[in-house]
Amino acid sequence: MTSSQPMIDTGLFSPVRSGTPAEAATSDTACLQAMLDTEAALARVQARLGTVPESAARAIGEAARAEHFDPHELAVQARGAANPVVPLVRRLTALVAARDADAAHSVHQGSTSQDILDTGLMLVAARTLDLVLADLDRTAAALAGLAARHRDTPMAARTLGQHAVPTTFGLKAAGWLQGVLDARDRLRRVRTQGLPVQLGGAAGTMAGYLEYALLHAPDAAADGGRRYIEELPGALAAELDLTEPLVPWHTVRTPLADLGAALALLTGALGGIAADVQLLSRTETGELAEPAAEGRGTSSAMPHKRNPALSALIRAASYQVPSLVGTLMQVSVHDDERPSGAWHAEWLPLRDCLRLAGGAAHTAAELTEGLTVHEDRMLANLDLTGGLVVSERLAALLSVELGRAEAKALLGRASAQAATSGRHLADVLAQAPDLAGRRSADDLRKLSDPAHYTGAAGQLVDRVLGRFRLDRPAD
Amino acid sequence: MTSSQPMIDTGLFSPVRSGTPAEAATSDTACLQAMLDTEAALARVQARLGTVPESAARAIGEAARAEHFDPHELAVQARGAANPVVPLVRRLTALVAARDADAAHSVHQGSTSQDILDTGLMLVAARTLDLVLADLDRTAAALAGLAARHRDTPMAARTLGQHAVPTTFGLKAAGWLQGVLDARDRLRRVRTQGLPVQLGGAAGTMAGYLEYALLHAPDAAADGGRRYIEELPGALAAELDLTEPLVPWHTVRTPLADLGAALALLTGALGGIAADVQLLSRTETGELAEPAAEGRGTSSAMPHKRNPALSALIRAASYQVPSLVGTLMQVSVHDDERPSGAWHAEWLPLRDCLRLAGGAAHTAAELTEGLTVHEDRMLANLDLTGGLVVSERLAALLSVELGRAEAKALLGRASAQAATSGRHLADVLAQAPDLAGRRSADDLRKLSDPAHYTGAAGQLVDRVLGRFRLDRPAD
Amino acid sequence: MTSSQPMIDTGLFSPVRSGTPAEAATSDTACLQAMLDTEAALARVQARLGTVPESAARAIGEAARAEHFDPHELAVQARGAANPVVPLVRRLTALVAARDADAAHSVHQGSTSQDILDTGLMLVAARTLDLVLADLDRTAAALAGLAARHRDTPMAARTLGQHAVPTTFGLKAAGWLQGVLDARDRLRRVRTQGLPVQLGGAAGTMAGYLEYALLHAPDAAADGGRRYIEELPGALAAELDLTEPLVPWHTVRTPLADLGAALALLTGALGGIAADVQLLSRTETGELAEPAAEGRGTSSAMPHKRNPALSALIRAASYQVPSLVGTLMQVSVHDDERPSGAWHAEWLPLRDCLRLAGGAAHTAAELTEGLTVHEDRMLANLDLTGGLVVSERLAALLSVELGRAEAKALLGRASAQAATSGRHLADVLAQAPDLAGRRSADDLRKLSDPAHYTGAAGQLVDRVLGRFRLDRPAD
Amino acid sequence: MTSSQPMIDTGLFSPVRSGTPAEAATSDTACLQAMLDTEAALARVQARLGTVPESAARAIGEAARAEHFDPHELAVQARGAANPVVPLVRRLTALVAARDADAAHSVHQGSTSQDILDTGLMLVAARTLDLVLADLDRTAAALAGLAARHRDTPMAARTLGQHAVPTTFGLKAAGWLQGVLDARDRLRRVRTQGLPVQLGGAAGTMAGYLEYALLHAPDAAADGGRRYIEELPGALAAELDLTEPLVPWHTVRTPLADLGAALALLTGALGGIAADVQLLSRTETGELAEPAAEGRGTSSAMPHKRNPALSALIRAASYQVPSLVGTLMQVSVHDDERPSGAWHAEWLPLRDCLRLAGGAAHTAAELTEGLTVHEDRMLANLDLTGGLVVSERLAALLSVELGRAEAKALLGRASAQAATSGRHLADVLAQAPDLAGRRSADDLRKLSDPAHYTGAAGQLVDRVLGRFRLDRPAD
Repeated sequence: MTSSQPMIDTGLFSPVRSGTPAEAATSDTACLQAMLDTEAALARVQARLGTVPESAARAIGEAARAEHFDPHELAVQARGAANPVVPLVRRLTALVAARDADAAHSVHQGSTSQDILDTGLMLVAARTLDLVLADLDRTAAALAGLAARHRDTPMAARTLGQHAVPTTFGLKAAGWLQGVLDARDRLRRVRTQGLPVQLGGAAGTMAGYLEYALLHAPDAAADGGRRYIEELPGALAAELDLTEPLVPWHTVRTPLADLGAALALLTGALGGIAADVQLLSRTETGELAEPAAEGRGTSSAMPHKRNPALSALIRAASYQVPSLVGTLMQVSVHDDERPSGAWHAEWLPLRDCLRLAGGAAHTAAELTEGLTVHEDRMLANLDLTGGLVVSERLAALLSVELGRAEAKALLGRASAQAATSGRHLADVLAQAPDLAGRRSADDLRKLSDPAHYTGAAGQLVDRVLGRFRLDRPAD
Repeated sequence: MTSSQPMIDTGLFSPVRSGTPAEAATSDTACLQAMLDTEAALARVQARLGTVPESAARAIGEAARAEHFDPHELAVQARGAANPVVPLVRRLTALVAARDADAAHSVHQGSTSQDILDTGLMLVAARTLDLVLADLDRTAAALAGLAARHRDTPMAARTLGQHAVPTTFGLKAAGWLQGVLDARDRLRRVRTQGLPVQLGGAAGTMAGYLEYALLHAPDAAADGGRRYIEELPGALAAELDLTEPLVPWHTVRTPLADLGAALALLTGALGGIAADVQLLSRTETGELAEPAAEGRGTSSAMPHKRNPALSALIRAASYQVPSLVGTLMQVSVHDDERPSGAWHAEWLPLRDCLRLAGGAAHTAAELTEGLTVHEDRMLANLDLTGGLVVSERLAALLSVELGRAEAKALLGRASAQAATSGRHLADVLAQAPDLAGRRSADDLRKLSDPAHYTGAAGQLVDRVLGRFRLDRPAD
Repeated sequence: MTSSQPMIDTGLFSPVRSGTPAEAATSDTACLQAMLDTEAALARVQARLGTVPESAARAIGEAARAEHFDPHELAVQARGAANPVVPLVRRLTALVAARDADAAHSVHQGSTSQDILDTGLMLVAARTLDLVLADLDRTAAALAGLAARHRDTPMAARTLGQHAVPTTFGLKAAGWLQGVLDARDRLRRVRTQGLPVQLGGAAGTMAGYLEYALLHAPDAAADGGRRYIEELPGALAAELDLTEPLVPWHTVRTPLADLGAALALLTGALGGIAADVQLLSRTETGELAEPAAEGRGTSSAMPHKRNPALSALIRAASYQVPSLVGTLMQVSVHDDERPSGAWHAEWLPLRDCLRLAGGAAHTAAELTEGLTVHEDRMLANLDLTGGLVVSERLAALLSVELGRAEAKALLGRASAQAATSGRHLADVLAQAPDLAGRRSADDLRKLSDPAHYTGAAGQLVDRVLGRFRLDRPAD
Repeated sequence: MTSSQPMIDTGLFSPVRSGTPAEAATSDTACLQAMLDTEAALARVQARLGTVPESAARAIGEAARAEHFDPHELAVQARGAANPVVPLVRRLTALVAARDADAAHSVHQGSTSQDILDTGLMLVAARTLDLVLADLDRTAAALAGLAARHRDTPMAARTLGQHAVPTTFGLKAAGWLQGVLDARDRLRRVRTQGLPVQLGGAAGTMAGYLEYALLHAPDAAADGGRRYIEELPGALAAELDLTEPLVPWHTVRTPLADLGAALALLTGALGGIAADVQLLSRTETGELAEPAAEGRGTSSAMPHKRNPALSALIRAASYQVPSLVGTLMQVSVHDDERPSGAWHAEWLPLRDCLRLAGGAAHTAAELTEGLTVHEDRMLANLDLTGGLVVSERLAALLSVELGRAEAKALLGRASAQAATSGRHLADVLAQAPDLAGRRSADDLRKLSDPAHYTGAAGQLVDRVLGRFRLDRPAD
């Protein structure tokens, strides 16, 4: 439908998802099509089970195409019944009637707005998750590459912003990967087991579906519709590649809560990568740099600057999703057989979560695949504290030799002296009377080489890479 | 610009604002225009102060029209610098250059993306608040009418869902009005004092603006630009009908926090009205009904139902806004001179708050202006407890006559007896030996008439109406 | 330690958990003990693996008892290092030293505050979840009983507060049960697979643990500590009945996110029960009543009232948990090797979630086990609409006989007439000329008996009960 | 009351407030006392207005002391009525009766739990805000000192983590101050105008208060109680140093929303200071250091480290408060005359906000008063980009001389060359053929001195200091 759609939201204020696959998969057009796909699939399944004529199902399928509908017009009409399915069904019925007057009787047969809208949302979620998972596969592969390549690249570990002890960049990348794999696990589980069709009829008893079956399908009538009720949801689920629910879930909102939680886990994991990239690419630190690209990171005021734009986009998404998921959890309390407001408040936050998480995943793939690692800066920064970064190791060694209390006191004095004088801690210690004859300056220098105190970093990297290899994409 | 804009969000999942004035005032087109208005106003002001040629300001003003821009294209390009102003300035510069090559040098002079985007958002907020305030004026007037009309209409007050004591519908309406007036106060304050222009340059020092002034404006150069710096922000604020800030607020996000808080207060107040309408229009209660209208409240499955659709829409908005405001408050921590992500995470939640609150206000005007009040049902429901609803009064009276403990015990026994027997509490009490000779049945009946125990309800209604009259719209 | 502990929070403002098992399991004393248990278990495991003397482990175990510590004093000292483990280790070391000077060297060996605090929190979570799961078993059993008992008890289904079609109270109870089983599933999964020990040392490389192993345990030294690193976490996990992590999770906060999400799912499910109980026990509706108990539901102002207090408590918890989980998700972005603030912001919300959810579960067991169901009121309320509650069925039937459009028109007219006249819809229809000779008044009356239009409610109840039986507690 | 109070929360997991004045002012004991103060004040006021005997008011005042109550016991009993006021009134009545049997009749006369609890919370808020405001006065003074002292201390401004242009530390401190002053303004406004007493009786009609006045006070009876109703709330407000409300606000929760919003604004402002301190004290940056103190910032694993502990504490608070305020806003929808759950869900979040904000304010005073500023590191860091930090200025200058496009191209080339070669941008430019004869190397060096390109920073600092001086504490 060519129309003068108002440009209400084309992405201007959410560049993290602008032009990404997730944006397209969650557009109003896509959501409308998903609801129409649900109507069409329902009719096909009802036809197969004998409650709707085959010809009617065909006519419905032909009419149920988004280009025949104007989403903004539906949106405005949606104010009448507080949901967009009512005008959608009205228009769909008219479109079908124009082709086949009898078929119009079969549109939305036995159904209710919530069945169509909930199933449509699950369908949108499924289609978006497929895209997100593909981007996570790319991201995971990129991170695994970084972890493997930098398994033994020493860098400073920082806690509360201060150099603590050495670590490796490989271990940092492995930590990022671990978070991404955790999120991918949960998203895969949601995708394969957690996106059920909704099929309850007016108030979750399936009475409308059953009534029509008893009226139209002699087979169904034979056993009072028992088998029909057993078969209908599974058939619809198979048709739409969604999950079969145990019972209608009009008021049991587990699917949205699980989906929301998994998306928040994802944006948390990706947000962590972004936050680290920002910190490590600070001008003073310079250990990482975002991938350069035409037009990326330009500042309107400062021609020399290359802003870490991708991590800003991802971080922005990770700030927004938790509150949206909080809303989803808040409105998961559905009273009566359909609440007034709580259901209606799910739609926008859920879609925004999908969009933001999908955009963040796409952006993260780009970021991690092109990340530049400056090993030289990592090494140089490790030296900034003149050996203090390995004082934990020296404390362990010296406490064996001198006792814990004495070792601690000695290190305290030596650290202070090193800090004041600017000398290396090893050199200060080499001249400490308490250590006279025990440890040579050379020995102390070697012991205080940060690259030799990365603990089990390599082994831990290997464990995460092992998981990654077991867990890779199906292709 | 006619274009094949994708229909990313036309309102399908947010009917509370579909087709409302607030939706139009916050569309991508409107936001884009607000940023362009900012660029144009900046050029005009700089021209007036001598740092930009008049002709350049004119050329910029002519080019700065949303129809020359494609918001989705800008959105996609915004990924490069993590904000849409960079591509907007690029295109604006090209458009100006096409008219007047020299004028292009004056586009965005001394400025930074955040100045344009923050000011643009304030402008969108201002324009939307004007519409919201108009709808609140309508709502407040409707509520004042209800409060006055039903000042003395008795109904049951309910606490935790149980009849407590009598109240009046006027007092309920006055409570709604009080909430709306509180919110209107705060929104008016924000509108008139709390929407400042942003004008800090690259990092809040105004260095760029100052540098160009020193280069181009001999007057400015005379005092090192002091006066120029004093005048520029106020001039821009006057131009755009916004507030003059004390200093740039790149990292001090008070305006967004105040605006968000006021919008949450509003949706809380309107949500409270909606929640009450829902409860009081329940089938069993039937004391209120939403305004009927063509196509309103239709159910796709149940032809007989008139759903309270307007209150569902309002309630849905009131569920969503608090979390969005929570995000705004969460990201109000802006580190450095511009954070990576926290700034970028403000745009969408802020706009959604404006949209949802604006939609809710518009819907509330419609709801309150057309609300149907069933006084008969209110009276009938008051009788449901057979006098128990006034037991507080009887407890007070009897405790004077019998002492508190004895009165309490008597009332307890009598209430239980009334509940079991279905008799009216007054009749049970009339036969209580303890009261023999003290109170006649008639007297007790009169004392237990709910309509005579509404306390100071009328007086309290008058107080709120007094505030309303003092506080009315300027018109 | 008897002390003049300030009564900072004894539960006054959170009665949902006051005096419940979850409150005790999450007290400061319990949390302190959990951290001490972690220190003691770490020493035992290190002793077993040869890096700490057996006698030291024993001395540490003896000293590590909460009664030797003053939690408020630790809390105040915690301001120094921004966490309570630093003063805890200081005092523990002193206590151990008082018993065995040498053993003091083995306290907290190779460890870091985060290892102790994170593991301690997981231990608190594990112990609390065991209690919560027991209360959920009680709740699920009570709900299964209600669902079975009322499998065929008809009642009105309400959507947006209006009677929609009939349903059964059994199906409502089955829906509640479904939500509880979903939450129990996820909490069980978290309990058995999702509460890992934390064991990373200063910055997640395990360097401290490794260093001491190399210094003290000749076996460990033989392979550079590889096997030691493989064994240590699993041994600690076994000791504390927690999960073995793949790698340290200092910055990968999946366990908290999963736990939080499961707790929010739970309070959502319980909040839904509470919300329904409130609505259905409203004075006008009266279909349910909370269990009566001494002192329960008393109002200070209204002697006659029995407030639904248990559902108010549960609902209050369900309002609070989502935002707390939102905080947990928001701070799941852990930058560097330990962030400044995000880690520290997890402790209180996580504990509050455990407390509130635990209190809600305990309260829900009490509520559901004692719930009173008024079948007579359910039946009476079903009649309130004079047959309109089955108009969906009549629409289906009549559209077969008259065609959809004509049926809809007829029903519309008849419903309006019934509503106006107060007559039953069946009687109005019986006199409709269009139906003359097709349907007798008797037939129409039977067709419009709500008890005969509950769809597949019974069958759906059976499906949920089937799940419940497969899924019951291990006992 | 000496008792074996369980140590449920003594602060172990919230060191930001441990031992601070705000913690004491919000303890269960303090809250209990505030509610008792309300009961006592109500009796005094009722005595003054003639509805309660003076002697009764005296007896109530004597009994209403927290030490006569066991808060944990009340908490457990609070489960019965879903709020702690019911058992509190029961015990208070017994205590009064023990002194004066008649006086017991006057306890809680005409009142309701919500009146006592809401007023009690307002009283706690008032007392805590007085402490918070004192800490903000200290903080503001410290920041004003920093801003004045470092008005012209140059440092790098960073946007998205990258050096952008120069700024001054004074302007950064002025920005912090501006945020604190904004929050102080709003908190003062709330303190003086926004903390009303609650006085509505059972359901907001004041019927109970009125009834007793009509029964006991002949004066009141004369005008049907009109004047009494006008006077009672103001008298109580004066007694408790709180605000007089226009009408009861049982369901209009503006006071909590305003208070919450102001507290979130505060923790946002303080969180911003903390975030900056963390970033600027990073090992690589070293421009700021937290005040040193005995036991502060110690790490259990790394003897050499001085962690920025105060900023971690403040940041942790700033992460938690927005979600808690989100809850307050979410539950501001109060349906009926008292909702079931939404009211009960306010107490804990509100108190936690007061505690966390109060702790953060106290901690911020300590942090800002002792902050160490390393001007040398600021200068050294400004040089890190070899002049690129002033490229904005050079771009402005050169575009006047060469035209905008040519200047931009030249600067781009020169910046790249400078970055690659490690030479200073000024030196590269000095050899650029385009500039030959226009600008000497000396001139270019001077133009690119960061200390000479701080824009209007000093002037902006002065504006904020001007506000501070106008706005200082009353004392």
